[in-house]
Amino acid sequence: MSEAGIVRDLANATVTVVGLGLMGGSLAAALSTRRVCRRVLGVARRRVTWEMARDLRFIDQGTIDLAQGMAEADIVVLAMPVGEILAALGEIGPWLRPGCLVMDVGSTKRAICAAMDALPPAVQPLGGHPMCGKETSGLSVAEPTLYQDRIFVLAPLPRTSPEALDLGRSLVTGIGARPVVLDAERHDRAVAAISHLPYLLAVSLVNAVGELAHADPVCWQLAAGGFRDTSRVASSDLQMMRDILASNREPVLQAAEQAQAQLGELARCLREDDMPALLALLRAAHDRRAEVVR
Amino acid sequence: MSEAGIVRDLANATVTVVGLGLMGGSLAAALSTRRVCRRVLGVARRRVTWEMARDLRFIDQGTIDLAQGMAEADIVVLAMPVGEILAALGEIGPWLRPGCLVMDVGSTKRAICAAMDALPPAVQPLGGHPMCGKETSGLSVAEPTLYQDRIFVLAPLPRTSPEALDLGRSLVTGIGARPVVLDAERHDRAVAAISHLPYLLAVSLVNAVGELAHADPVCWQLAAGGFRDTSRVASSDLQMMRDILASNREPVLQAAEQAQAQLGELARCLREDDMPALLALLRAAHDRRAEVVR
Repeated sequence: MSEAGIVRDLANATVTVVGLGLMGGSLAAALSTRRVCRRVLGVARRRVTWEMARDLRFIDQGTIDLAQGMAEADIVVLAMPVGEILAALGEIGPWLRPGCLVMDVGSTKRAICAAMDALPPAVQPLGGHPMCGKETSGLSVAEPTLYQDRIFVLAPLPRTSPEALDLGRSLVTGIGARPVVLDAERHDRAVAAISHLPYLLAVSLVNAVGELAHADPVCWQLAAGGFRDTSRVASSDLQMMRDILASNREPVLQAAEQAQAQLGELARCLREDDMPALLALLRAAHDRRAEVVR
Repeated sequence: MSEAGIVRDLANATVTVVGLGLMGGSLAAALSTRRVCRRVLGVARRRVTWEMARDLRFIDQGTIDLAQGMAEADIVVLAMPVGEILAALGEIGPWLRPGCLVMDVGSTKRAICAAMDALPPAVQPLGGHPMCGKETSGLSVAEPTLYQDRIFVLAPLPRTSPEALDLGRSLVTGIGARPVVLDAERHDRAVAAISHLPYLLAVSLVNAVGELAHADPVCWQLAAGGFRDTSRVASSDLQMMRDILASNREPVLQAAEQAQAQLGELARCLREDDMPALLALLRAAHDRRAEVVR
């Protein structure tokens, strides 16, 4: 590659993944297993983590030194919780090579893309958010197939060049995911509805049953698939979710308000014994879900 | 068996299952496969259904005539939606043999146990509710293992004899389930929290995203595991769920109110940027779920 331009050939690129948890570890694993790029470097907080990633052949080399991890990178992917990504973006600017593509896998995009906008002009920023994940976290559950066939949102900034977006797209398809290009604002509104609202409802469910169970703990004994599935995402990583909610406040509040209105309307129909209206709401949800969940 | 007394030996009993959908078909299948009783009869609305159940060896004989299905039964299990169970209970009294045990698998118990209380005095009523099920329904998805290791609530009436309760318990353990004895009132409050509230929240989620998606349908494209699992029970059978909600109004409304309060509290914390309080709520749900979901 030329010293100043962006690398055009992903196969020749050195990719540094910062954060070797579920998302970063799986990304490194997919890049390595599928031989997407020339080299995969890993940056972890602890030596034992990158050593494990190296032993798993997810990365070629590792370091606990962020500056060192940036030094040879053609592409950097920040794969930490949103708060840590924001902190890292404030630090790495001076260490990045000119032409370096800086991506991330954070769950919200406005705050991150705003921080990316402050990177040095010679660097290409590109927000990213793969629509996958689990309630479990850490390198031990990482797997090269995590991204397979999943949507991977790419959120270019106004300053992002078409070449940089193309390179990001190649990386996404290289790991088996499907790129969808969206600006940060649209992305954040959409995930507030489709991802952060389910989380708030799952948390509300568990805490509501907790309150109701004070009167009679037997209800926990009757928990079956309905409770288990509806509450599943309440087991998500706490730091990650706090960061996500804090960095997407307004869209999340709007989604929560909409859900409260819907729940209130169901309760109103039931209270007033308006069974036709209740059934219409149940049917709308039933039919809609059949349309949208494959 | 004596003509007037309850059959004491389940192995010698004729069990009539009314309704050969997911629940009734699976119950008949478990009884037959595990050779729990002498004979399994099936009552279905359509001849083609009981014929299919017979061909699958789930039942020994079938009929579309409810009176005929009752004539030889030592045990009757009503396995329809709550509304149909209530209707059947109003009809079958005159056709039941003295000493017959009448059970059901309906999802709420107060209304059903009240209707059971009006059965002839020579008959033994026992409410039942197995904590299993799927969003799919019908005989084609029935399977003999549906009840395996699941909680099966038994709700005796004041008039239910200890022998009748024992016989019900034998049937429940015979199909591989685990009996839990609860009165109808306690059962209904517990399932309002642990089962009907998840349904209302799933419906609210789908309808809320539906509203939010008017502004930008792209959010459906980003739907991943979180939305899928949190909304799963919104795909439940509509007639069944309407009956359940209608027959459990007050406990369900109380549960919905509690969930609204919890969701409101999450929103308040986020709105006021009270992140410690928000994190405490997220952690409470996270830790509670780890305790109660195996």
